[in-house]
Parts: sequence; structure tokens; C-alpha cells
Amino acid sequence: MNKIIVLYKRPAGKPALGDFKTEIEDVPTADDGEVLLKTRYVSVDPYLRGRMNDEESYIPPFELNKPLQSGIIAEVVDSNNTLFKVGDFVLGNLDWKEYQVSNGKGLRTIPNDPAYLTAHLGILGMTGMTAYLGLTKIGAPKPGETIVVSGAAGAVGSVVGQVGKLLGCRVVGLAGSDEKVELLKSKFHFDEAINYKTTTDLSAAIKTACPAGVDVYFDNVGGPISDAVLNNINKHARIPLCGAISLYNAAEPVLGPYIQPVLVKKSALIQGFIIGDFAAHLPEATKQLTSWLMEGKLTYSETIYEGFDHITQAFLALFEGSNEGKMIVKI
Amino acid sequence: MNKIIVLYKRPAGKPALGDFKTEIEDVPTADDGEVLLKTRYVSVDPYLRGRMNDEESYIPPFELNKPLQSGIIAEVVDSNNTLFKVGDFVLGNLDWKEYQVSNGKGLRTIPNDPAYLTAHLGILGMTGMTAYLGLTKIGAPKPGETIVVSGAAGAVGSVVGQVGKLLGCRVVGLAGSDEKVELLKSKFHFDEAINYKTTTDLSAAIKTACPAGVDVYFDNVGGPISDAVLNNINKHARIPLCGAISLYNAAEPVLGPYIQPVLVKKSALIQGFIIGDFAAHLPEATKQLTSWLMEGKLTYSETIYEGFDHITQAFLALFEGSNEGKMIVKI
Repeated sequence: MNKIIVLYKRPAGKPALGDFKTEIEDVPTADDGEVLLKTRYVSVDPYLRGRMNDEESYIPPFELNKPLQSGIIAEVVDSNNTLFKVGDFVLGNLDWKEYQVSNGKGLRTIPNDPAYLTAHLGILGMTGMTAYLGLTKIGAPKPGETIVVSGAAGAVGSVVGQVGKLLGCRVVGLAGSDEKVELLKSKFHFDEAINYKTTTDLSAAIKTACPAGVDVYFDNVGGPISDAVLNNINKHARIPLCGAISLYNAAEPVLGPYIQPVLVKKSALIQGFIIGDFAAHLPEATKQLTSWLMEGKLTYSETIYEGFDHITQAFLALFEGSNEGKMIVKI
Repeated sequence: MNKIIVLYKRPAGKPALGDFKTEIEDVPTADDGEVLLKTRYVSVDPYLRGRMNDEESYIPPFELNKPLQSGIIAEVVDSNNTLFKVGDFVLGNLDWKEYQVSNGKGLRTIPNDPAYLTAHLGILGMTGMTAYLGLTKIGAPKPGETIVVSGAAGAVGSVVGQVGKLLGCRVVGLAGSDEKVELLKSKFHFDEAINYKTTTDLSAAIKTACPAGVDVYFDNVGGPISDAVLNNINKHARIPLCGAISLYNAAEPVLGPYIQPVLVKKSALIQGFIIGDFAAHLPEATKQLTSWLMEGKLTYSETIYEGFDHITQAFLALFEGSNEGKMIVKI
């Protein structure tokens, strides 16, 4: 028997367990040209929340009563496709199923090196590329400039901070617990880190942490945290806007001060982006991040849940900020 | 005797007559290397409001009890500077004084052609360059794309729309009266124009006027008008952010829906700018706009107040939206 997780209801506000349903079907068989895949590691990411709404976005919404999808590492357990053999590990945007068949389209074989296997869902995968390309292509930091990162202890933010340091910048991280703040400084070598939950005047704290002002703000969260950073940007600041996790679950638009006046005053740039905007630069990003990782210049954190039945919980936990680094479910 | 207008109080919210004071001094005399200038035309512009606040911005704030300044066309009435002779007309960022001396620094001689004299304060001056460079360098519209312009009947907006048409785009203007809407269509050849004050559902009206969505939004106003446009932007939209006149007079930050989610969803770019950001491109812009103007491909409107004593009123009228095109005071 084969378990699958489908979207049962579109979440109203924050997603809940009842929005998802586990169904049972027969394990499928691989026809000519197909492979049978066994799911090994499932990536859960904040952007999936957007696909749960019934609205046009950069990717089509999930359909009700159809399986959810995300980045998955699977093992080939049967193959009628000459490009893949039994025992291969592949990466793809796959269904939340224990077993599934694929014609191989969109699958990429990855080395089964236990030390770096899950890195392909994180620092060498979508989140690492997003961090590297958003920072370098939009933020374009120059050595000596100051970078602020929100969601700094997350899968994207922790890479942004490390890459910023490798590029010779001062890096300040914003995160939601003292443990994360400590981790940013000790493990990821941020120059400063601020717990936005316990800081009364975040804007003033950012000012203290960034005596020369903020040149690049890598924004994962939006909302009031970003307002506090905007208070401190320098002339010609660049803001790669990667996500807005603080606003994803709002049933109604959240209100805050209009940001146009500060953007005009500072000749500042905000650029929303997804990794697909930089498809042409993926090889360059992969090469650079792999090289830094192998040289020991980059590190990463993972929060690993275990068991197919915990995929949904892992996803929900993202919105509690309970993950450190990349959230992954090991099956 | 020489009249001068000084900033008497920093405006709280919308500026009022009492924030300004007219003072009398002796007419100065030109020393060695100096010229004596008689003010002929004074430009009043929304951006001056920002300089009246006591806060750091892209230009230093005006000082209390010191003369205000703006773009001015003056006549040389006495000269001890070999670069200027009596009767020359010059353009510069000058004090609000009937007469003033200058060492010539920052002054540019302009042809005393009555047909185009004031154009040097508008379409061939700061506002025209701002329109052309913001649209082409940030908006980068491609033929067939749709451009929406807010503050469309203003000095910048009316040039943006015309340049957009010359570049082969569909152009839709937002303005605050039926007369302006009519003018945009009849005189400036906008494809559509919308009176945002009388339209109940502005977002829906923009959708109707832009069946293929909005690729470039040239934003002069910020606030709820901009929110309505943001509802209709296409993937990879570009938003040159030139001003935020709807928010300049607010004593407290004005609240609206956070815009980060739509920017992420659409991979959209907002770039605040001032003309100085594109200093290297000013010759190219001057050449192109002059050429189009001489070929009769561009036109412009001016609202002319008369008399030195009416400079302040003309400035205040900008915030009532009572001007069509460039607001100028003829002395």
C-alpha cells in the first residue's frame, strides 16, 4: 500500500493539520520508459503556502484532493528507463507519495554521498541558489558594505550571511530566538545578530548593529521587521525580496506604513525574485557554492523530521519558526 | 528694495501660507567675478516639500529663516564675470529672491527663445529628464507593453505618457479630474485615462484599461492609488518610483497593505530614484527630448502663476492637484 498526502482544504490563514489528508492507493508500477521511485527525503518550504491559495502566482496553485509537491530526493527502486538504474538517487519536484512513477523528466541524478545527500535540498539546492543569486545579482554587495538578513537562521538566510562574509561584508542577522542568535554568531560567523522578538526597539537595535547604515537588506519576511530595517537603509540600498513569511498566512491584507517615501528618499531598489528568474546563472551558483562547501568555507543546519506521516507537521512548524536551517523530512 | 521668501516654520502636514515669510533686503551688488541676477521664472515642485522637513534626505533640508530655493530662470542685469553678459538668460538652482548675486557656479546660459524659455524648467529641464530617464532606465518598456502613470497630468507624468507612446507602448494615465483625463487623451495621446477620484473600484478600472496587465508603473504618488495598480502588475513588472506626493504631507506614517507579497509573487522591481542618479545620462536625455520637441512629437502644459508674491501660493496649489503640467511662477 502507498500513502499519499493531498490538499484537502485551502488553508484560511495559518495552515492546520485538517487542511491535509492522507490517502491510500496501490503502489504503482513502472511502464516502459518509467521509473518507480521511493521517497527518501522531502523538502518543506514556506513558498508552498502560496500554492495552497486558489490564486495565480508564479507557479500554479495546488489542486484540491490532489497530492502536494515539493523538492524530493528519491531512490530508484525499479527502472524501465535507460537513463536511471535501480539504486540511483534522484532529485526532482515530486508528489508527496511514498512511491511514485516518473518518466524521468525533470529528474536529476545526484551522488549518493551520505555527507552531502540532503545538501541537494538545501545549500546546493533551491534554497542555497536562491540565497547566492538573490544576494549577488540583486544585492550586489561590495566589500565593506553592510548586509542585513531577516529570517537569518533559515535555510536561505544562513547561506546569505555566510556568502556575505565571504564577499567581505559586515553581516547582521535577524532571528526569532536567543538560540538562533547564538547560532548565527558562533556557527555562521555573522558579525551581529538580533532577536527581533525580544528587542523593544528593533529599528534602534539595527542602527546600533549597523553603524554605517544598511546597504543591502536580504528580506525573507516582510512586515514590521522589514519596516525597522528600512528605517536604516543607506542611499542606493538594494533589497532582494525573497519571501514574506510574516505575511503569508494573513487572511486579510496586513497594514503597515507605506514604504514609497523611504524608497524615494534613499533611491532604493526592491526586487522580488524567485530562483527561476536567474535560471541562466544556476551553473555558476552551483559551482561556487559546491566549491566553497568542499573547502569548508560554508556550513549549514538542518532540522530533520522523521517519517512520512510527519511531513505535514514539519511544514506547519515552518510558520512557528521552530526550524534551524533547512527543514527536511526523512522517510 | 529686494523681496525674499524664507522658510519661517517647518510645515506640520500640509504646508500653509504661515510657514513662509517674505522679507525685504537691499538689492545686492555684483563683486568681481559675480553677476547680478533678476528672477524671471520660478519652478515650484512637489519634492521641495521634503526639504522643508528637518530630516536627512537626498538633499539637505532648508534652513529656517533662510531663503527657499528651486529651479529658476533669471536674467543677468549686471556682470563682472566674463562668462555672462547683461541680457543673458541663465538657469540654476537659485534662491527665492527678486534679485541675487552669483559667482556663476552651477548656472547654465539658455537661449532666450520665448517659445521654449520655460521649457527649460519643465520638459527640457528637471521634470522632463526625470520622466525620460526614470521611464527608460528603470521601466525599460518594450514596444507593445503597457505603462500606467500616476500623477499623469503633472509635469513628469505627461512626459512619461508621451515618451511611452513614442516607444510603442500602450499608456494609461491616472489623474484627479475629468478635465485632466480629457487632456491626457486629447493633448497627450494617452490610450486611456482614469479619474481616480470618481472611480469607485480603481483596481477594476485599471484592469479594464489594461487588458494585458501592467508591465511598467511610473509612480509619482504612492499610497492607495499605487496599491490599485499593484493589483494589476504582470510578472517582472518594473516600477520607477519618482515621488510619493500623496504621502508627503502626512504628519504620521500612512498605513496601507504591505506590498512585499505582490512583489515576490510577480518578481517585480521598485526603484526609487532622483535625477541625480542618472547624471551620466543627462546629455542623451536632453538631446532626445529636444529633438522630439522640435519635431513636434512632444508637447507640454504649463500652469503659470504671476508675481513674486504668488510663489508660495503656487507651491501650495501643487498639493491640491490644481496644476496641469509644469507649475511655474512668472515674475
